[in-house]
Formats: sequence, structure tokens, C-alpha cells
Amino acid sequence: MASLDFKLDFTKGKGLIPAIAQDFNTGEVLMLAYMNQASFDETLSSGKATYFSRSRQSLWKKGETSGHVQQVKEIRVDCDQDTILLKVEQVGGAACHKGYKSCFFKRIENRELTIVEKRVFDPDTVYK
Amino acid sequence: MASLDFKLDFTKGKGLIPAIAQDFNTGEVLMLAYMNQASFDETLSSGKATYFSRSRQSLWKKGETSGHVQQVKEIRVDCDQDTILLKVEQVGGAACHKGYKSCFFKRIENRELTIVEKRVFDPDTVYK
Repeated sequence: MASLDFKLDFTKGKGLIPAIAQDFNTGEVLMLAYMNQASFDETLSSGKATYFSRSRQSLWKKGETSGHVQQVKEIRVDCDQDTILLKVEQVGGAACHKGYKSCFFKRIENRELTIVEKRVFDPDTVYK
Repeated sequence: MASLDFKLDFTKGKGLIPAIAQDFNTGEVLMLAYMNQASFDETLSSGKATYFSRSRQSLWKKGETSGHVQQVKEIRVDCDQDTILLKVEQVGGAACHKGYKSCFFKRIENRELTIVEKRVFDPDTVYK
């Protein structure tokens, strides 16, 4: 793989940077996950969003189990080069393992959390 | 201040969670910063985005110096309750201290970073 002409700053997050996934067409923010250098490299070379799972401490090829991969259309880097914004096409229509298009399906209303989105799929039928 | 009926999970990030700011009208992702419990409480009570500066290790009332505050229109919480999405009205039109509307003004093209947005203001005239 050809080397990159820039460097991301992985130092502040101890080897990890946050990566925001945004729907390429609608602009909806789908999720936030983390990347290490290897997952960033894998995302670039495969064209599919690959994160680093903090709970499993391993590369996480998003959608490998569910089939709901994220095809990367564009990658933005922020001013400090310590955050990534992926503009993606979400296969299957839902990024969240709870069956919603976006992980941000809860809104704060009157100091409570209210679900304001509709489920796209039933998690019990997708993750068996 | 009335107590909240939910809890955010600050444990994974050692007291900090990432907060994404998104333009309420256009859906553009403006920036990502961090919040501790105090900055989250201040954001809720003031209606203006308040972060925690990792470099200064103190509360950061966004726009206090530049006047470019973020009026919070809506707050979303993700499935794991460890990430916040603020839908904001960005006063002054620019969230980035480098003078761009969004901090994500660089795109990866052919393994290089290319600036793909236009400056809204000259940082030298805003931060004196």
C-alpha cells in the first residue's frame, strides 16, 4: 500500500481517534466509533468502514456479522487531525445494532430520554 | 437544577465523552469536542455548547473569546449513552478556530489531504 502524505494524531487518545459516520446522502449522523492506525489503513484500502472495538480490543469490520457494511464515499479529517468524518452509504439502512438507522435515536426532552426514531430492523432476527 | 432521569457513561473515556456538533439546519458536521459531567450540565442549563478542553484541562465555553457560540437546538444521545450529538445554530457561521464553518474542511484525495471548503473568517482578526 502506498504511504500516506499526512499523519493522523493518535497520541491524545492513546492510539485511538474517534470516527464519525455520516450518511452520504442525507447528512444524518449514524454513529461514532474509534479507529487505530490499522483500522484506518484497512478502511482506506478496503473502502469499507473498519473500526477498533474498545470492548473486544480488536479490529471491527463493521457489518461483518449483520451484512450492514458501510461503503465509504468520502473521508474528511479535522483541523487537528485527531478526528475522522466518514461519509458512507449504509448497506441495510441501519447503522445501530439496536435496529435503528442512527445510533442517535434518543433525544433529551425535559431532562428525560425519548426515542424519536423508528426501528429499521429487529435485532433478534439479524444477530443470531 | 432538577436532576436528570438518565445517566451518561463517562467511564470508558475516563470522565470524558465525545460530543459531535452538527448544524441544525444543514446537517453539516461542524466539530467534535469532549465533555465531562460539568460541561454537559452547563450545556443543558445554559443552552450553549460547553465542552471540556483536554489541552487546558478546564471548562470551555465555546465562543467565549470569538463570540461564535453554539446555540443548542436539540441534544441526541447514542445507544450506549457514551456519545452526544448536539444540533446547534452556529453564531458567526464558523465553528473552526481556523476560520472554516466546519473543522472537517480537509478531504482525503489520492492519499493526500486537500482543503475543500472556503474560509468564513480570518482567524487573525477574530482571535487577537
